[in-house]
Amino acid sequence: AEVKKIAVIAGDGIGPEVVAEAEKVLKRTEEVFGYRFETEHALFGGIAIDEKGTPLPEETLTVCKSADAVLLGAVGGPKWDNNSKELRPETGLLGIRKALGLFSNLRPAVVFDCLKDASTLKPEVLEGTDLMVVRELTGGIYFGEKFRREGSQGEEAVDTCVYNVTEVERIVRQAFEIAQGRRKKLASVDKANVLETSRLWREVVNRVAPDYPDVEVEHVLVDNCAMQLLRRPASFDVIVTENMFGDILSDEAAMLTGSIGMLASASLGEGSFGLYEPVHGSAPDIAGQGLANPIATILSLALMFRTTFGYAEGADAIEAAVSNVLNAGHRTSDIAVDKSTAISTTEMGDLIVAAI
Amino acid sequence: AEVKKIAVIAGDGIGPEVVAEAEKVLKRTEEVFGYRFETEHALFGGIAIDEKGTPLPEETLTVCKSADAVLLGAVGGPKWDNNSKELRPETGLLGIRKALGLFSNLRPAVVFDCLKDASTLKPEVLEGTDLMVVRELTGGIYFGEKFRREGSQGEEAVDTCVYNVTEVERIVRQAFEIAQGRRKKLASVDKANVLETSRLWREVVNRVAPDYPDVEVEHVLVDNCAMQLLRRPASFDVIVTENMFGDILSDEAAMLTGSIGMLASASLGEGSFGLYEPVHGSAPDIAGQGLANPIATILSLALMFRTTFGYAEGADAIEAAVSNVLNAGHRTSDIAVDKSTAISTTEMGDLIVAAI
Ligand SMILES: CC(C)[C@H](C(=O)O)[C@@H](O)C(=O)O
Ligand SMILES: CC(C)[C@H](C(=O)O)[C@@H](O)C(=O)O
Repeated sequence: AEVKKIAVIAGDGIGPEVVAEAEKVLKRTEEVFGYRFETEHALFGGIAIDEKGTPLPEETLTVCKSADAVLLGAVGGPKWDNNSKELRPETGLLGIRKALGLFSNLRPAVVFDCLKDASTLKPEVLEGTDLMVVRELTGGIYFGEKFRREGSQGEEAVDTCVYNVTEVERIVRQAFEIAQGRRKKLASVDKANVLETSRLWREVVNRVAPDYPDVEVEHVLVDNCAMQLLRRPASFDVIVTENMFGDILSDEAAMLTGSIGMLASASLGEGSFGLYEPVHGSAPDIAGQGLANPIATILSLALMFRTTFGYAEGADAIEAAVSNVLNAGHRTSDIAVDKSTAISTTEMGDLIVAAI
Repeated sequence: AEVKKIAVIAGDGIGPEVVAEAEKVLKRTEEVFGYRFETEHALFGGIAIDEKGTPLPEETLTVCKSADAVLLGAVGGPKWDNNSKELRPETGLLGIRKALGLFSNLRPAVVFDCLKDASTLKPEVLEGTDLMVVRELTGGIYFGEKFRREGSQGEEAVDTCVYNVTEVERIVRQAFEIAQGRRKKLASVDKANVLETSRLWREVVNRVAPDYPDVEVEHVLVDNCAMQLLRRPASFDVIVTENMFGDILSDEAAMLTGSIGMLASASLGEGSFGLYEPVHGSAPDIAGQGLANPIATILSLALMFRTTFGYAEGADAIEAAVSNVLNAGHRTSDIAVDKSTAISTTEMGDLIVAAI
């Protein structure tokens, strides 16, 4: 097989531990399916601040740009929380999204059977929940001009939210296509009763909708969506929304599944290139203790296989291995009902490798 | 007693029905407690668009400005949803907030014992939930400059989010004071890792916090707050946040209590003046059928008594009457488990009046 290049960014906290397990899985798929991968490690986030004086070193960007895909563990931690803006891990995250043109963040929120009791929602409400949040990732208030100025009422801060038709159209069309491959329902979330950017957003959705006649579209106001996710989560299929609303709603959606430690995500640009990472954070409180659950990172690898490489067979095998290991009753401590029987990060990785 | 003037805005949908019941309660408190009220009705929202060609007629503002408080039913409906911006009910809502200087929106989210099964959250998670969202209401991206322009990538829309120190300080201090009268915990919600307005917000919170040494403050990022509301709702006491985040989080918080049809809200300015309204909307689908639940509006009146008039005795009596009627098993159809035993809007109003 052709050699695929993967940039591996372990990051901070539990990042290195979970990424190490995903790399074992990667190796295993080479043996079983004959894939060939070349991995290159790069520094990013807090560790890059410590070692290179910047969260996103030039070399890291170069490594990512020459790769076919990026696997990211997690970044951030209290150590860097009070740094100035340029020296914060989040600034690296925003920078890498922009530099790599990753305009679309896919956040599937599914309920794992073995975890449905972990949700704070009633099981009958959760039943059948399987949704995907498609979040615009390089526009909106995240990247608009921001500044301070002296106003008549004292110091003022300003953030600017900007969207152009082209940006909206590419993410909306992608969401329609994703819906076509799923249950063919698209909820476009905005605040069109207040925001001009939302009115533009809604116009674009309405203009392109006829190109996807098989997809049923509804417009949902963001405040109402925050409620409906709680009331009828299973009724959503694909949700498409702008950057800030997507940040909030994708986290709400992930949390209501009860499976947040198990969810994968993909950030995509033009073409097949993508950055894959677990939804969970760097969990500095449990870092270095072998307690982290590597499943979300391993499932992010499966998403990479399917989405960037077109390796459906390998992706299926990884997902099946995860299911089998869970069905056999193995749990890391975050998802174990009886903590005394919990297995470690590396034990979980080894079991999944063995099941492939 | 001194005559208190109340501007009554029935509005659209179920607004007139629920407001009528609150007015009966008002009369009853005059008889029982010797209060004296003068009510003046005014047109607002959809009905004002139909009859006066604008959602917020000048006369309505005049009536509100000469009153001590405003009671609002609900506004809006599909009939006006596709109108141009100037002819939409929401535009009236934003206009009245700004014109009356209502910079603070208080949204208590409590669980009514008789409704705890109505929540989609597990009862053990909901147990003890009693929180108050304090939302900034006249600033931020709602009121900043908004426009379209031609950009290099086609048409662009722009919204501007602006906050000055004075605006932030007055709402934050109010939230601290509210927390002092409650469980003394304040969660300030922002997105300081991305937004300049959030960084200003956080600076102000940190600067004024020492003036309220008895209040425990935590800063919570908005995406994390959307999750924590689901995971540990009972751990929140007062949440203070900017306009857009408050819109989303207050609706999420209301929905998770399962009691959304019963929640009151207050919008306050300088001094004791306030606008009081139920959290629920105009529910055009059930309007005019006697199905609406008047309790949220009646409880909004109690909130007005307590907050604007300092009529604690009357407020207590209204709240006790509502409790007694509910404890006796009376339910409107929205909260009835067995719909066949549900009583009508006016029956519920009459029972509460009789219980005062
Ligand atoms: C860390 C932060 C800047 C980031 C965001 O808001 O995009 C995070 O919350 C996420 O969702 O990836
Ligand atoms: C109707 C709309 C403009 C309004 C808002 O967003 O403020 C509503 O959602 C609310 O919360 O009162």
